Amino acid sequence: MSADLPVSFADVRAAAERLRGIAHRTPVLTSRTFNALTGRKVFFKCENFQRAGAFKFRGAYNRLSQLRDEEKQRGIVAFSSGNHAQGIALAAQLLNIPATIVMPDDAPAIKLTATRGYGAEVILNDRQKTSREEIARQLAQERGLTLVPPFDDPHIIAGQGTAALELCEEIPDLDALITPVGGGGLISGCAIAARGLQPRIAAPPATIADGIRTQAIGTLTFAIMRALLREIVIVSDAEILDAVRFVISRMKMIVEPTGAVPIAAVMQQRIPANLKRVGIIVSGGNISGALLNEVKF
Amino acid sequence: MSADLPVSFADVRAAAERLRGIAHRTPVLTSRTFNALTGRKVFFKCENFQRAGAFKFRGAYNRLSQLRDEEKQRGIVAFSSGNHAQGIALAAQLLNIPATIVMPDDAPAIKLTATRGYGAEVILNDRQKTSREEIARQLAQERGLTLVPPFDDPHIIAGQGTAALELCEEIPDLDALITPVGGGGLISGCAIAARGLQPRIAAPPATIADGIRTQAIGTLTFAIMRALLREIVIVSDAEILDAVRFVISRMKMIVEPTGAVPIAAVMQQRIPANLKRVGIIVSGGNISGALLNEVKF
Repeated sequence: MSADLPVSFADVRAAAERLRGIAHRTPVLTSRTFNALTGRKVFFKCENFQRAGAFKFRGAYNRLSQLRDEEKQRGIVAFSSGNHAQGIALAAQLLNIPATIVMPDDAPAIKLTATRGYGAEVILNDRQKTSREEIARQLAQERGLTLVPPFDDPHIIAGQGTAALELCEEIPDLDALITPVGGGGLISGCAIAARGLQPRIAAPPATIADGIRTQAIGTLTFAIMRALLREIVIVSDAEILDAVRFVISRMKMIVEPTGAVPIAAVMQQRIPANLKRVGIIVSGGNISGALLNEVKF
Repeated sequence: MSADLPVSFADVRAAAERLRGIAHRTPVLTSRTFNALTGRKVFFKCENFQRAGAFKFRGAYNRLSQLRDEEKQRGIVAFSSGNHAQGIALAAQLLNIPATIVMPDDAPAIKLTATRGYGAEVILNDRQKTSREEIARQLAQERGLTLVPPFDDPHIIAGQGTAALELCEEIPDLDALITPVGGGGLISGCAIAARGLQPRIAAPPATIADGIRTQAIGTLTFAIMRALLREIVIVSDAEILDAVRFVISRMKMIVEPTGAVPIAAVMQQRIPANLKRVGIIVSGGNISGALLNEVKF
């Protein structure tokens, strides 16, 4: 079955080689308080400490480093409201590739600043009037740029999978692996990595939040998810905020709401009771200042 | 010279053995943004992820685990407004030792709750009227309890030194090691550990903040500091808050103001320019909710 999938375990391994010394090998943290609270043993793979603040840098760098020289010279274009923009901008900067990123004009100032700070040209888009994907496609055509999709791409998926590869190498006997789901790039890559390294995780459960402005799942990511995932569970905005508050006050780290989704799922006991050793990909830490100011302790 | 010191490198090694599997081996994080900003290569030893939220647990456990059986049965008493209280309470709980902690009646609710949560009896003290140290001494005498001092004790000092031991084992060629200074327990233990493992750190500079309600330096800690420290630098409250804000927004982790002191010292370039590879002990993450609510992003 997995022989037919668009991304192989060998692809994830190759991505890990490309990222060696470039992406952070992020730490795996544990919290006895969280374990006592949930009756599990949970291992948090902290991609909130990744470069540019999220796992997205992994896929972005893996993708951009494989462009042909002429593609690199002409440059790339991407569209994103957040972490993909920053991941792509940083990867492009490191590889000396001109980057154009289409972002919504109501994106948080900190994200615009960070993306520009990595040297990308930011084009603002009024999301009421035009689709930023449309604008990106137009730019790609007019300027001969390579369009880098946010998730539905084999190299992006393989890159994201390196987060789970590192986690499963370090904690070799997990019962389950949980990640948030947006377009499915992270969960797909991680499922392939976990399955490859640790066949006992027959089907890592995925978490999807109704609180996330999720894009449609991609064609490639859907194929992988359908083949490898055991379960998708839902958490509410309030449950996500509770998890954010717990992680900040007890685990002393910043997570963005998306990154707290799998944590909320475990706190709310949405995961089957027999799965005791649980790995969580904490996807990122790029919470907006406005939201952080709102959280009360 | 160091042969005369009250704590030896072997003591730190022995403490590390006692703490194995009990204290967290906390991660060492880096931030390229911070390095670019400061022109150094800085390694953050994250004791904000330590059990009970601070390095204090190391010394507390090392001290309490060496009590005689009859001392353990009678119990211990300590006085503290913060991290020492929690570190002692948790260590006592793990070792099945009854613990009484004298705390100021205006201590943040979260610290009182945490200390009680670890099973300690908390006695509140009006700091306008009586010294909590006095009350603790009285309790020790009346009830036959062992008084556990916050820093001026060889076992406490040796335990705190294990933080630097782990850091220097992982990053073997530091030019300098910086820690905050309260009573001097952390800096003393760390200086002994760093000197023992890495004689090239001839004299790690220490940082002291005028923003910290610092106790007097202890007798033992003063002797060690005088022998081993190169320098003490000062940072302001505003500089500490800037560092807290940087660490939260860019490094995605929570530090308490004390933990941000060495970070502020590097940000403000108070450290000699030739010290390029710098280790920092991020002492803890127990920031009060009130202060965290005040920090604006």
